[in-house]
Amino acid sequence: MTKASICTIGDEILIGQIVDTNSSHIASALDSLGIKVTRMLSIADDSDAIISGLTAQLADCDIVICTGGLGPTKDDITKPSLFSLSGSTGWVEFEAQTEVNREILHSRGLDTLESNRHQSLVPNRCDPILNRRGTAPIMAFHFDGSRFGHKAALYSMPGVPFETLAALPDVLEDIHEHFSLSEIHHHTLMTYGLAESALAEKLAEWEDALPKGIHLAYLPNPLTGVRLRLSSFTGDSEKLEAEAEKLKTILGNLVYSDCDDTLESAIGKLLRGSGRTLSAAESCTGGEISHLITTIPGASEYYLGSVTSYSAEVKCKVLGVKRECIDTEGIVSSAVAAAMAEGVRRLTGSTYSVATTGWADAYGDEHEPAGTVWIGVSGPEGTVTERRQYRNDRKRNIQRFAASALDLLRRYIEGNAR
Amino acid sequence: MTKASICTIGDEILIGQIVDTNSSHIASALDSLGIKVTRMLSIADDSDAIISGLTAQLADCDIVICTGGLGPTKDDITKPSLFSLSGSTGWVEFEAQTEVNREILHSRGLDTLESNRHQSLVPNRCDPILNRRGTAPIMAFHFDGSRFGHKAALYSMPGVPFETLAALPDVLEDIHEHFSLSEIHHHTLMTYGLAESALAEKLAEWEDALPKGIHLAYLPNPLTGVRLRLSSFTGDSEKLEAEAEKLKTILGNLVYSDCDDTLESAIGKLLRGSGRTLSAAESCTGGEISHLITTIPGASEYYLGSVTSYSAEVKCKVLGVKRECIDTEGIVSSAVAAAMAEGVRRLTGSTYSVATTGWADAYGDEHEPAGTVWIGVSGPEGTVTERRQYRNDRKRNIQRFAASALDLLRRYIEGNAR
Repeated sequence: MTKASICTIGDEILIGQIVDTNSSHIASALDSLGIKVTRMLSIADDSDAIISGLTAQLADCDIVICTGGLGPTKDDITKPSLFSLSGSTGWVEFEAQTEVNREILHSRGLDTLESNRHQSLVPNRCDPILNRRGTAPIMAFHFDGSRFGHKAALYSMPGVPFETLAALPDVLEDIHEHFSLSEIHHHTLMTYGLAESALAEKLAEWEDALPKGIHLAYLPNPLTGVRLRLSSFTGDSEKLEAEAEKLKTILGNLVYSDCDDTLESAIGKLLRGSGRTLSAAESCTGGEISHLITTIPGASEYYLGSVTSYSAEVKCKVLGVKRECIDTEGIVSSAVAAAMAEGVRRLTGSTYSVATTGWADAYGDEHEPAGTVWIGVSGPEGTVTERRQYRNDRKRNIQRFAASALDLLRRYIEGNAR
Repeated sequence: MTKASICTIGDEILIGQIVDTNSSHIASALDSLGIKVTRMLSIADDSDAIISGLTAQLADCDIVICTGGLGPTKDDITKPSLFSLSGSTGWVEFEAQTEVNREILHSRGLDTLESNRHQSLVPNRCDPILNRRGTAPIMAFHFDGSRFGHKAALYSMPGVPFETLAALPDVLEDIHEHFSLSEIHHHTLMTYGLAESALAEKLAEWEDALPKGIHLAYLPNPLTGVRLRLSSFTGDSEKLEAEAEKLKTILGNLVYSDCDDTLESAIGKLLRGSGRTLSAAESCTGGEISHLITTIPGASEYYLGSVTSYSAEVKCKVLGVKRECIDTEGIVSSAVAAAMAEGVRRLTGSTYSVATTGWADAYGDEHEPAGTVWIGVSGPEGTVTERRQYRNDRKRNIQRFAASALDLLRRYIEGNAR
């Protein structure tokens, strides 16, 4: 099995100033290709640390991908370190990058400075890959067996996440060209509503009968549900698709997507182009549901807006919830969730609406304990409500409440919310 | 200088399933104590990898902190690895943990099972530290110079972030007891509105004149602004405070906090207990401002709610923005931002309100280009608006728009928004 190591270079990670999200994205992509990531490492902006750290990884692994340490003020350290590590003998200009950099600077109203041209110089042992989103080229170094006792490749990518992500497909393509990876097919199903252990129980019989070479991985995430990844290591994609179909039949409406969707992007796919619209009324989730819905490009086509009714007055005055209803049922109740959903649907004229009222913090009231949320969804088929309870801290409860609400909305739109 | 390494144990990190946020928190805490984090490492749930990885770190560093690999189904690997690494000769029950675990299980309506009692067993070479939030105790191993050629300590902490964070102060206290750290004082100022380079220019003269032993660090973050950390390495906190005062005078209202606040927590401090209230009207930010405000415990005391007016209809119907105003000025304009702020303030009766209208995506219109936001803040002193422009992707633009809006609100409440 091809082994890989992922390294980040930069003091800002070692002092805890920023959280490294690049490594996780790269690891996930390598894992999908059947490449085993055996370690991740963060090292300082220091030439000795870079050279010794990367050399040790190359001795152990087939592929080393490092990110960071390439900014215009920083490449004094990383680039010469890679120059020396690779045994390069001179610098060459990567002209395609110079051209991109000229355009980037021009779009910012700046001229090409000498220090910026410097950015497109690379060690002559490297095979540069174009960075379309930034000024520092991706550097690929390929080593035959003479250096580390095995064929190896080192990739140096920029550390700015949106540049890293944009360049990743090109790096993966280069890996494909240089390493013989086994042909792997995946089929991903996103599920929401059952924990990993309960899913595993439900799937035990089917999983035991899986044909050889087909494997199921459980990838749980409390906010997006359990991602199920069915993989075929034999190159047989037909068998894989047949098993994916069986899996969907067993799981029914627990499955919300056939690919790597989030709940909010799955809802977007249901609504876009349908002419149907959506609104939200939030209490305990405080805007998080609306925020998630509007992270999806094109949301303005179906999303009309929301009311965050944090105070009881706004619930009554803007959403038309009855004061008696709050007093008798409790502010966290099925009746208030339903009235909020109906109120915002009336106010905005949307086809569907979703509402939440709950206790996200460490306290509740005489009606409902801490961690409880009532969710309401309203639409042409009437109004439904559901109750959920979680035992996390405030921020986490807010996120889980929002995910549960989006899931009920999704099931309602699909016609599966009872 | 005391050197440390931070390790995470767990396949879920190496396959990119989760992003490691613990290491960043731990690194930041160690950095504040003047401990230099020289590397971070993620290793697999594999006994050989754990023992060889941690041994190599202990040979290089004074302190190694590892997280993860301690769940009830996982400690088969990590705990015996630490048992063997530490040269332990037997297992002992950490009774204080058994007691905590009994309470945790009881609160979930469960009995104490044998497998859960197993959780409080630790290798006899370890000095256990109580985990108050979970069932796996923190394990501290102290080594004298005979093992690694220098005094060293290894800490094993649970990987669930809220358990890790809760246990961190106890681990830091143990580090204080076992290592002679130099006395460092810090004074942190949070700033918003100027980039790192512009701040550095503004502070150059003062910074050049800083007394010996006092150092300023710039810790930029596009969402919370530049954090300035002034540190004294001489134990002289009086001199430090005098310099912090000078710094505040130079920076004026660019400073929004004297400690580690976010913009939303700083606003919470301004409003709590004042009797004044707040509401929001969001277009392009889609709920993010409201979400940020309501992540602060106690926000319900001053926050009444918000309207996300994603469609023009909701802007007009719910917030009372005039259709002619949208048509003549453009939907992304000073006039619309002001009308939205005034509209939501009227609707909710709040003391203050904040509003946004902008183009978060890659397109704009004939009035304003992509990446533009108009922010309005309304209150007893009238309505002010500001324009900002960013060149990020949709999600990042939404976050930057929201941060800019909170900053204008903060300056308005402080009486500094023109």
